[in-house]
Amino acid sequence: MRVLVLGGDGYLGWPTALHLSDRGHELAVLDNLARRGYDRELGVQSLVPIEDLETRVAAWQELSGQVITPYLGDLLDADFVHRVLAEFRPEAIVHFAEQRAAPYSMIDRAHAVYTQQNNVIGTLNLMYAVAETNPDVHIVKLGTMGEYGTPNIDIEEGWLEVTHNGRTDRMLYPKKPGSFYHLSKVHDSHNLEFGCRIWGLRVTDLNQGVVYGQQTEQTVQDPRLATRFDYDAVFGTVLNRFVIQAVLGEPLTVYGSGGQTRGFLDIRDTVECIRLAVENPAEQGEFRVFNQMTESYSVSRLAELVAAAFPGPVQVDHLENPRVEQAEHYYNVKHTGLVELGLQPHLLSDTLIESMFDIVALNKDRVDPSALLPTVRWKLKP
Amino acid sequence: MRVLVLGGDGYLGWPTALHLSDRGHELAVLDNLARRGYDRELGVQSLVPIEDLETRVAAWQELSGQVITPYLGDLLDADFVHRVLAEFRPEAIVHFAEQRAAPYSMIDRAHAVYTQQNNVIGTLNLMYAVAETNPDVHIVKLGTMGEYGTPNIDIEEGWLEVTHNGRTDRMLYPKKPGSFYHLSKVHDSHNLEFGCRIWGLRVTDLNQGVVYGQQTEQTVQDPRLATRFDYDAVFGTVLNRFVIQAVLGEPLTVYGSGGQTRGFLDIRDTVECIRLAVENPAEQGEFRVFNQMTESYSVSRLAELVAAAFPGPVQVDHLENPRVEQAEHYYNVKHTGLVELGLQPHLLSDTLIESMFDIVALNKDRVDPSALLPTVRWKLKP
Repeated sequence: MRVLVLGGDGYLGWPTALHLSDRGHELAVLDNLARRGYDRELGVQSLVPIEDLETRVAAWQELSGQVITPYLGDLLDADFVHRVLAEFRPEAIVHFAEQRAAPYSMIDRAHAVYTQQNNVIGTLNLMYAVAETNPDVHIVKLGTMGEYGTPNIDIEEGWLEVTHNGRTDRMLYPKKPGSFYHLSKVHDSHNLEFGCRIWGLRVTDLNQGVVYGQQTEQTVQDPRLATRFDYDAVFGTVLNRFVIQAVLGEPLTVYGSGGQTRGFLDIRDTVECIRLAVENPAEQGEFRVFNQMTESYSVSRLAELVAAAFPGPVQVDHLENPRVEQAEHYYNVKHTGLVELGLQPHLLSDTLIESMFDIVALNKDRVDPSALLPTVRWKLKP
Repeated sequence: MRVLVLGGDGYLGWPTALHLSDRGHELAVLDNLARRGYDRELGVQSLVPIEDLETRVAAWQELSGQVITPYLGDLLDADFVHRVLAEFRPEAIVHFAEQRAAPYSMIDRAHAVYTQQNNVIGTLNLMYAVAETNPDVHIVKLGTMGEYGTPNIDIEEGWLEVTHNGRTDRMLYPKKPGSFYHLSKVHDSHNLEFGCRIWGLRVTDLNQGVVYGQQTEQTVQDPRLATRFDYDAVFGTVLNRFVIQAVLGEPLTVYGSGGQTRGFLDIRDTVECIRLAVENPAEQGEFRVFNQMTESYSVSRLAELVAAAFPGPVQVDHLENPRVEQAEHYYNVKHTGLVELGLQPHLLSDTLIESMFDIVALNKDRVDPSALLPTVRWKLKP
């Protein structure tokens, strides 16, 4: 299949493009390189050195013989999006091209506005480009488990059968997200569901959990294929950050009690989930939702796992939670859709954590320890 | 109370400002005059002539002795919003300042993007300005009954008690809106609910039905106080349009079967609902939702009512529905919140329709009949 990966230069977009190319699909990636710009803005960098997109694509062609066509440009440029779709004529579009850090969206008003404008308008432009050029193209959109928040009922896959006053309807699952970033994904989901209803779009919305890990079957083949590995308090996800803190001898920074429970998955499962979604498209007019996660852990349990796996002393610090979120809550997520398509999860094990220790040890001189501590607070300063 | 009305030059914003001023509140209005710009863009005009904002404000001062302070500017200009809040120091802000026509948002990609960007980012800027200057200010936000769509269960006021697999939670009512405009209001609602949770904002979200009528107790006092009356297929709401079509001897344009049922209210109830919301603020941190409507009618029933009330022959035409919506559906809406605060509804009666006939008859030479027919279609051209 011809697959276009939007945000194909990012942490997950790039390994996804490699994985799909390796599995015989014809790939193009589109990126505006915004993620590299956030590094410059925040004065941080990926723990693992990464090559520029041209070098990555050339290295993959050298190793595999497969071409990945790069398009540099912005989803906010509607004409550009139209041109790329007309030229590459994808059968599926995987959409990672959004600002994806909750803390980044909460820095201040300008960052909140940037995040919602960039994500929501970019996706609107994509929807129109697909509807106007070929509504049959399958849009595989990255959402987030954070759209749901932490409801006191089981989390279903996007839709909920509601019975109320003796009547029943199948409704979009009610959302209660925890940042302006997570809200932008909720807005996208609503816009996309409408696109399915009025234009017959085919959409798969992947509500992804927190991803950990940095290596896939493809990225390990050559250092030039490495994907980024973020450890800073803005873009670094929690397990990656804990592993890095352990290796550096820094305390693991648990926010609040650590009772917050979230869904997680291995980066190798991310790329496989997307392959499964792409190869098994949604029906015409179907807004299909999968919860893309394999296991739930509380933050304090993750800290315990990292401490137990690390071969040295590990200190766990409970910081005042910079976010506003429930410390203790019910969390039970249905995530069978992707398993039914064939996903065989890599569950979190000491082996994985240990391989992450090695990656960090190799690159520990690149770490700026001050970037590990949270500076963005959900509450405004008085 | 000191009340700032955003969009205070519009169809409902202006009568709301007058009503609140008349009831002894200290008023300011903020407007970017975008609504007058849409007229120029679409080549249409209000059926009833309206004065510019300066003249309106001066006329009201002449008649009532009350001052309404006008601020000309845009919610997208965050610094401007901050300045106005710092200067006027409102206790309540009534927020009408959004692009409010579903067909306008469906003209094409650019209009969809404009609508969502204008509405969502304007409201984000407002939220930050309130949170940063005085989080105690009560935001009274105009939503729409169209956020809910037409679910097969009773429509509650914004929140729904959900029982699922033996567990229960109070959740935001699931939304299924029918245009990019209606979606923008759903996005606003989610953003605002988050603002209540993290910053303790006080928000009342008024999911308003379709408003009919053009005169209030205040606007009838002088022609210079008149508010706009839209009859065109883009901005004209259905009952207003039917009345105008009857007087002109044009067929009433029912879209599809006319089985679509919606909530309606009299413009005099709109201004009163807003007074009640303003004078009875939401609690700190409360996201309070009222369904601001008084009666439900199907579109074909409205056509029958107009035909029965009009003293001449009336033809009803069923056009192919330019929208994508359910033709026949369940519709049962709870709307007791505002009644509990004291609302005494003006129910739709022949008297009201007849007074509208008179307004139209006085201004019928201003009508462009070609503007009555729908040109915006939800489905894209093949």
